Amino acid sequence: MNLQKSFITRVPGFRAVGVHCGLKLSGKPDLALVLADRPCTATAVFTTNVFKSAHILYDLPLLARAKGKLQAVIINAGNANAVTGEQGLRDAEQMARLTEMACGLPTDSVFVMSTGVIGQAMPMEKIAVGIKAVSEQIGTKAGEHGEMAVQAIMTTDLVSKEAFIETTIGGQVVKIGGMAKGSGMIHPNMATMLAVIVTDAVIEPAMLNLALKQAIDVSFNAITVDGDTSTNDTVLLLASGQAAPQPFPNSGVSSPDSVEFGQFTQALTEVCITLAKAVARDGEGATKLIEITIRGATTQAEARTAAKTVATSPLVKTAIFGNDPNWGRILAAIGRSGVAVEPSRTSLTLDDFQLVERGEPCNFDAAAIHDWLTEHKEIKIEVDLAVGTAQATVWTCDFSYKYVAINAEYHT
Amino acid sequence: MNLQKSFITRVPGFRAVGVHCGLKLSGKPDLALVLADRPCTATAVFTTNVFKSAHILYDLPLLARAKGKLQAVIINAGNANAVTGEQGLRDAEQMARLTEMACGLPTDSVFVMSTGVIGQAMPMEKIAVGIKAVSEQIGTKAGEHGEMAVQAIMTTDLVSKEAFIETTIGGQVVKIGGMAKGSGMIHPNMATMLAVIVTDAVIEPAMLNLALKQAIDVSFNAITVDGDTSTNDTVLLLASGQAAPQPFPNSGVSSPDSVEFGQFTQALTEVCITLAKAVARDGEGATKLIEITIRGATTQAEARTAAKTVATSPLVKTAIFGNDPNWGRILAAIGRSGVAVEPSRTSLTLDDFQLVERGEPCNFDAAAIHDWLTEHKEIKIEVDLAVGTAQATVWTCDFSYKYVAINAEYHT
Repeated sequence: MNLQKSFITRVPGFRAVGVHCGLKLSGKPDLALVLADRPCTATAVFTTNVFKSAHILYDLPLLARAKGKLQAVIINAGNANAVTGEQGLRDAEQMARLTEMACGLPTDSVFVMSTGVIGQAMPMEKIAVGIKAVSEQIGTKAGEHGEMAVQAIMTTDLVSKEAFIETTIGGQVVKIGGMAKGSGMIHPNMATMLAVIVTDAVIEPAMLNLALKQAIDVSFNAITVDGDTSTNDTVLLLASGQAAPQPFPNSGVSSPDSVEFGQFTQALTEVCITLAKAVARDGEGATKLIEITIRGATTQAEARTAAKTVATSPLVKTAIFGNDPNWGRILAAIGRSGVAVEPSRTSLTLDDFQLVERGEPCNFDAAAIHDWLTEHKEIKIEVDLAVGTAQATVWTCDFSYKYVAINAEYHT
Repeated sequence: MNLQKSFITRVPGFRAVGVHCGLKLSGKPDLALVLADRPCTATAVFTTNVFKSAHILYDLPLLARAKGKLQAVIINAGNANAVTGEQGLRDAEQMARLTEMACGLPTDSVFVMSTGVIGQAMPMEKIAVGIKAVSEQIGTKAGEHGEMAVQAIMTTDLVSKEAFIETTIGGQVVKIGGMAKGSGMIHPNMATMLAVIVTDAVIEPAMLNLALKQAIDVSFNAITVDGDTSTNDTVLLLASGQAAPQPFPNSGVSSPDSVEFGQFTQALTEVCITLAKAVARDGEGATKLIEITIRGATTQAEARTAAKTVATSPLVKTAIFGNDPNWGRILAAIGRSGVAVEPSRTSLTLDDFQLVERGEPCNFDAAAIHDWLTEHKEIKIEVDLAVGTAQATVWTCDFSYKYVAINAEYHT
């Protein structure tokens, strides 16, 4: 496998463009269209927040109606279309209809995603003009404009997030490409982590869904910026099946027990982890990426809970921002997480520095670790609970003045 | 009832002093002694954090050994005596023994509390000198030095926290006084919310414990600064029984169903809420006290969960710091809290401003609310879920640049 930062348009059969239609005051691209040459097997995972955005309320029944077959996704930034009542749902549906008509696609073939300000009506006149523009450009500039599409889905993101992987499954070269946006689970009234992943793999709908769920569990569901789950989070995965000339089952991924399924899921997981870590690294105001691994837990769920409690602790995150090896805050977070812990067995390392060994503080050179932390942008925290054999890893970022600035100085 | 800010030494039969013994670099008082004239009925509530400080590991079996009878508490600030291994427990016990000897009290009559830096050995030579000093002063300056005791338990607190109430129960005038410290659930490597409450009420041990649990549930357990539960949190309640000349049951609180028990618990709750709100208002870097009430929940536990999720959301807390009526973040927090919510029924008010009514955003003058928020230091958020009849109130503070400064710029 060969993981790279590259645009989704490197996957054969997928085109993408982005335009500015007037939603972002900055004049930057704010509407993206990803279009497949033919209907794809589609699956998606959505936020667990009860207040779901209108596009999710539209997409959920769409996936059932379309029987998992979709050909395009239209994505806007600048307006989340969330908590917008009945009108919001009508607007999301209208975005799909306009895109289908403009691209000559059948009804119920277009998925919708939105990110931006909560509680404001979608400016549908601007959206209509934008959909016309992307549908015109995508025909003439096939495969060229992945970059504009990625730009168009960004909100407070400072960097764009792409990943591309090529692997061989069952004798066929399979490509997977993804793009994502996200900088806080919720932004200054601008919400959301969104991702679109495309592949030319030949894979059954049920297998595609299973692979995505497994990949998301250890990637997008293992990152946190501020503990706040957005109303709009959505990951869409489209599989064109163009990698193989023969239809399933001869050359495709057909069974969850197969070697091919394992290979596909592993490649997909690599793409998802790359995108997810990019989101955590670009968290609002972040100066460092923090990787937290809990080992020796009784269950994987408990390892995850302990890791997430550390990852969302403002005290841990401000300490790392201050380059302070403050292990007391890390243990205090684990101690309140509700998981099985035996204080006298717990050990803690910060990268190669052992700070606590079986419940007793180690002698360490705090000034040297402070200097080491100051020089490094990727920090690994590892805690061994030594009460079981399960483990989990979670990624987050530090908590800086800039986080407060981004989230306090923006006004509704 | 008549609630006042006053020292615990206003309750007859209790003396308190504070001295500087060298734990705080600032030279401020750092060791406090509270001494009762006679053995008191005692009860205490401790942190739920698995990593409990040494003083809690000492106090828990002490309460059982002493059969709920104690006469004094020795409290130090500047060192939490937490994650200090076996030596920490020996040091906590030594603090009790030294205090008992210096004050001429029997073994197992002194409770211990600590707050400060985690993971450092207690400087017992300084503590010994300090205990000698407080025991000498308390004999000569009875009732005078409540102020020094409150000063001695402060860490990053900017203001001292006291409360005093006088009420009539069963024909007897009963007094309850309390002092507390706390500015974050965990401070910059300095932990803890501590409180000592004393009363002259005549009350059975089991009733005292029940009253304290009920009072704490809606006061200290209903505040949060940063969501981080300390390793040292402790609330101690001592009842001298001096309010009445006759012994129980003729003039005391004897049954949880009695009018007297309700009156006592209500007065105690007032004291606890006053202290708890003072802690939230003095949260690290806080500029505002935020009161969050969730109404119309299916159960009180769900109302509490929803309120606490809002209260710990960095996005809500930074919005309030920025005087931004950002209701989208409040609803998003409730939506991820896991409680029963029906978006189309949910209404939200910020003080007198209605922002959301049954799921639909209201038209409001955002600039006017921004100005109103800018001028006010106490903010009330009220959300009506309209799916049940239960409610809960939680207090927190906003999230400012200074919070990051306090917690990032302190180095271990």
